[in-house]
Amino acid sequence: MNPMIERQMDHRSIRFFLDKPVPDTLNQTIYEVINRTSTSVGIQAYSVIRLTDPAKKDKLADLANQAYIKDMPEILIFLVDCYRNDQIAAVLGYQNEQTKNMDRFIQGLTDAVLCAQNAMNAIEAMDLGAVFMGSILNDPQALVDLLELPPLTMPILGLGYGYPNDQPELKPRMDMRFKLGENTYPHHEDYLTALKDYDQEMTHYYDTRHKNKRSDTFTNQVKAQLSKDKLKRDDYLKVMKAQGFIIEG
Amino acid sequence: MNPMIERQMDHRSIRFFLDKPVPDTLNQTIYEVINRTSTSVGIQAYSVIRLTDPAKKDKLADLANQAYIKDMPEILIFLVDCYRNDQIAAVLGYQNEQTKNMDRFIQGLTDAVLCAQNAMNAIEAMDLGAVFMGSILNDPQALVDLLELPPLTMPILGLGYGYPNDQPELKPRMDMRFKLGENTYPHHEDYLTALKDYDQEMTHYYDTRHKNKRSDTFTNQVKAQLSKDKLKRDDYLKVMKAQGFIIEG
Repeated sequence: MNPMIERQMDHRSIRFFLDKPVPDTLNQTIYEVINRTSTSVGIQAYSVIRLTDPAKKDKLADLANQAYIKDMPEILIFLVDCYRNDQIAAVLGYQNEQTKNMDRFIQGLTDAVLCAQNAMNAIEAMDLGAVFMGSILNDPQALVDLLELPPLTMPILGLGYGYPNDQPELKPRMDMRFKLGENTYPHHEDYLTALKDYDQEMTHYYDTRHKNKRSDTFTNQVKAQLSKDKLKRDDYLKVMKAQGFIIEG
Repeated sequence: MNPMIERQMDHRSIRFFLDKPVPDTLNQTIYEVINRTSTSVGIQAYSVIRLTDPAKKDKLADLANQAYIKDMPEILIFLVDCYRNDQIAAVLGYQNEQTKNMDRFIQGLTDAVLCAQNAMNAIEAMDLGAVFMGSILNDPQALVDLLELPPLTMPILGLGYGYPNDQPELKPRMDMRFKLGENTYPHHEDYLTALKDYDQEMTHYYDTRHKNKRSDTFTNQVKAQLSKDKLKRDDYLKVMKAQGFIIEG
């Protein structure tokens, strides 16, 4: 198999790293890959923040509630950035509410997340390991404050990387037939029955993995995740509005 | 240089393709790469629709206002999908408004876009070419209707691919220093002056490329894009709400 595809098929989230810095040349390559990523109509409506300040890393670990973040050699935080282009357009004498609406936000979000996955692939191609961190959004306002973000920007996804010191098992996925439709949505009548095999596979995975063994299934995980009162995380919309996005109508 | 990184650095959007079908084995590999992509807390809140019906391709080309879409050998449309998990959780006796809020939407959107970029990298690794299509959102309600989408799903990004019949020039990017900050946002005082070199580079690119030559700059492009009355595209939020997302508060 193509070595690139092989790596993609073998992706695992690496959360623990050797105490060994990532050479600057590799970091620069990752930044350049980010820079070369596709971007909607060329306007590059994203930014990235590299977190190197140990005090800020500690605070991020606290707000994400994941202590291992403190020890990550490299941390990137991907932002939706409608601020920079808004500044440019304002100088050129144009500014309107459309620069701040949901369509613009989604354009920036898409740009940012494409960059994040492209970075992941570059990192893995260089024999480093990485993990995406959605947990950085556990308290969106605290993160906006921590990074001192200007208006019309929003953090969306974190990425920690370095030399791997972690060997997690490959996590099973739901069969693609549940997620891939032809010409229309792939409906399934009775998910609980249809997902029985996958539930069993996940039970085996949780039960036999090296760390954090537990008894669980996929469908139960979904229920648990959707049942959570997520408190501050649910403030995302409020923080978007505080950051100047106009999400109304 | 690492061949994978080399491909990432050389990414170009391929919009025109040979009249040669993509073998099923390659498509299956791409679907499997999508399936192996990272997903927030394992819940896989995305789906993908493969468009093969010529009548639907024609309608997509019309609503995206890009005739070349009709002739694309393969088209994938990536969806935010909070519907499947909502169905599962409902059967298991739990359902609340948090399953439909902005935080959930963003989780699904992130899942979907990570898959899209991972697919792009797999496609390019197999010597195929591809282009992302944000233009599919030009009329979000028409697209929801075309794909007959259930509630709590939203289309987010299209991807067309096949054997390349297109050799576009490499498009210059804004220097990464504008987009990469250390510990905080990378502020620049006077964007117009700071981006002068990039504006010149873009002028040269537009002026010397083989197709669609024109006289333009980056900053002018930003102004033009942000000045557009985008009409139906701006309905995205309205369509999200019609699809059952609760975006309020």
